[in-house]
Amino acid sequence: MSSKRAGTYRTFYRDPVRIARASGCVIEDVDGRRLLDAYNNVPVLGHSHPGVAEAVRAELLRANTHTRYLDDAVDAYAGRLLSLLPQHIESVVFTCSGSEANDLALQVARYSSMAEGVIVVRRAYHGTTTATAAVSPSLSPQIPDTTECIDLPDHRSADFDAALAARVREAAAALESRGHGLAALLLDSTMTSEGIITGEHVRLSRTTDAVHDLGGFWIADEVQAGFRRTGPWFGFEKLGAAPDLVTLGKPMGAGLPIAAVAGPSVVFSDFGARQRYFNTFAGTPATIAAAGVVLDALSASGEEERITALAARLASGLEEAATASGAGGEVRANGLMVGLDLRTETRDEAAAGALAGEVVERMRELGVLISSTGPSSCVLKIRPPLVVAEAEVDEIARVCGEALSAAL
Amino acid sequence: MSSKRAGTYRTFYRDPVRIARASGCVIEDVDGRRLLDAYNNVPVLGHSHPGVAEAVRAELLRANTHTRYLDDAVDAYAGRLLSLLPQHIESVVFTCSGSEANDLALQVARYSSMAEGVIVVRRAYHGTTTATAAVSPSLSPQIPDTTECIDLPDHRSADFDAALAARVREAAAALESRGHGLAALLLDSTMTSEGIITGEHVRLSRTTDAVHDLGGFWIADEVQAGFRRTGPWFGFEKLGAAPDLVTLGKPMGAGLPIAAVAGPSVVFSDFGARQRYFNTFAGTPATIAAAGVVLDALSASGEEERITALAARLASGLEEAATASGAGGEVRANGLMVGLDLRTETRDEAAAGALAGEVVERMRELGVLISSTGPSSCVLKIRPPLVVAEAEVDEIARVCGEALSAAL
Repeated sequence: MSSKRAGTYRTFYRDPVRIARASGCVIEDVDGRRLLDAYNNVPVLGHSHPGVAEAVRAELLRANTHTRYLDDAVDAYAGRLLSLLPQHIESVVFTCSGSEANDLALQVARYSSMAEGVIVVRRAYHGTTTATAAVSPSLSPQIPDTTECIDLPDHRSADFDAALAARVREAAAALESRGHGLAALLLDSTMTSEGIITGEHVRLSRTTDAVHDLGGFWIADEVQAGFRRTGPWFGFEKLGAAPDLVTLGKPMGAGLPIAAVAGPSVVFSDFGARQRYFNTFAGTPATIAAAGVVLDALSASGEEERITALAARLASGLEEAATASGAGGEVRANGLMVGLDLRTETRDEAAAGALAGEVVERMRELGVLISSTGPSSCVLKIRPPLVVAEAEVDEIARVCGEALSAAL
Repeated sequence: MSSKRAGTYRTFYRDPVRIARASGCVIEDVDGRRLLDAYNNVPVLGHSHPGVAEAVRAELLRANTHTRYLDDAVDAYAGRLLSLLPQHIESVVFTCSGSEANDLALQVARYSSMAEGVIVVRRAYHGTTTATAAVSPSLSPQIPDTTECIDLPDHRSADFDAALAARVREAAAALESRGHGLAALLLDSTMTSEGIITGEHVRLSRTTDAVHDLGGFWIADEVQAGFRRTGPWFGFEKLGAAPDLVTLGKPMGAGLPIAAVAGPSVVFSDFGARQRYFNTFAGTPATIAAAGVVLDALSASGEEERITALAARLASGLEEAATASGAGGEVRANGLMVGLDLRTETRDEAAAGALAGEVVERMRELGVLISSTGPSSCVLKIRPPLVVAEAEVDEIARVCGEALSAAL
């Protein structure tokens, strides 16, 4: 497609991966080379999961119509999903992508709050529709004046929540000064784009109170954090506060395009009374079937503990690699969303970003796929499928150590 | 899901259809009742197409990653798709839905034109993202002042194109007076929402010239019209002009969520230089596989002629039904996108709308699923899967006649 690919496409790596097939956590390229996938959070049950393929096929052979007809399988899934969420999250609307989910959540929040302003973090990414790109400063520096960007406080500070609440109040005042009220604080629960921010002080109860005082919604963007990426079902469960609206996506259908917004019934009813919303491909039986397989697998007894243990093993392996290579830095693991921040007292953000970029490329050459994130992309971003094996976790850490040693 | 369905969902029919299974053009409900599907334009090859199910399953078992890796199957499909489009349409960007496709087309057109204004028809529907809802007056009367709505001229007039061009110039002047230039004329090539507007005078060459003079893009929304709905591959082929950007969706993946924007390479490159665009689920091998099966089937020799002949048969059957029942009205068939406009000299728009609503419900009771569109929904909207059989076409017309007789 080189010549057919539009100029908006960007491939990963200096030597782009040309895929032949993939299974579990392993991708095989067209030259028969094995690549361990420590990047993809969509194939949460592993690539080419036979249960997903069979469930989708079965529904494609039964019925795959839209939500203007009723289908018991779709109803049953909606009930299962909502049973995992806090009680005040009563209704779900399916969409095709996280972008569509965040776009709809913004429409609902703006309608209910009668305000337009949205607060996001400095490097936020929430989607590529016009409205979600406008709250995604990572895509383009040109953001409209209804968007206010804030920096996160130091995650090591016991005052994280209070400091964030204060920044939210300042940002809301700035929006107000430009004639906009506050519709929402939109925040990825793993704060991935800021470098995967987690820790004992990373809580949001005072921040949420501030948002509510200001008349806004806290929209938890769980597109990356949801479905056990962090261990529990949703990333917000570690944040000490319950969101008003939850958006879901990437791993939800194990690669099939399904996403959702969930929230209190009343906000959807109010919005629906004014504005029609219908999404042809969203919540069709085939995509719901894939989503059901994901729920089944992640509901298995001991999944949270298994993921938490693997995360600890990966974090510890990366810490060893960082120390042994002399790279230093800080490992931040929120379940299997793991960052290695390469900034140190003697390595600034720019140097750490350059090092991280080199490590990503060298790991790819050594057969392990990861990426980077955070300020100047100075944080290695490691998030394998949740079915990653202990030996694969060890391989990720070992290869990271080799790449760090070689790149330094 | 009744209690779980958010208040934004609307089901069809007084007695909603609860699906058990579907095959070809037939849906079976949970009570074992057979319903002939003359409404759904997504399962273009028929419901539960075994080739689609098998192709999707095969890719789900091979590889189903995103477009930041290269995959030969995705490249090959892009090339095939572009070979069907005019030569100046050189590149394609995949999305998950028609909404995402139109949203991206608007972003690209606005960036390239350095203007914000968009002209649409009075009852337009182009999607449910924030930006596409803003150019979809059918969803909500509240549209922003960057959107200008126009009425189509009389389709029976030889001056259709000239009159439309004049209205486009007036609308652009209105946008200009509010401080907005013209980014695009966004128009569904079958003009479905206006009541399925087609005929020998419905051409757009002067209109397109006007749009270009004004510095805007003509975006052909082929989400409904594309992939042989009208007989040829795309609806614009009957309009005597070539669009600048083409958006595709609904039938593209036979029920799998895949859509696209296609256009000249330079507009995507310019846009991509400023703004990142990436869509996790768009153009994945599984959805591309479904889209490939659609292209294969619709490429079969004689498809255009087969569809055109079926359309003529359906139109003629509906004309007989309208006459024999005494309902009158006008049949407008653009391939298998067929409207029966129930307005007559003695039946105004409101009365025709009420009659159409009743006919839709009675046909559903008699086992044929259709819908309505146009002003006050006064036009019966009939668009079966393209694999509809002659006997099914005859059944649609016969049942329509029965419903008209009963409803009058």
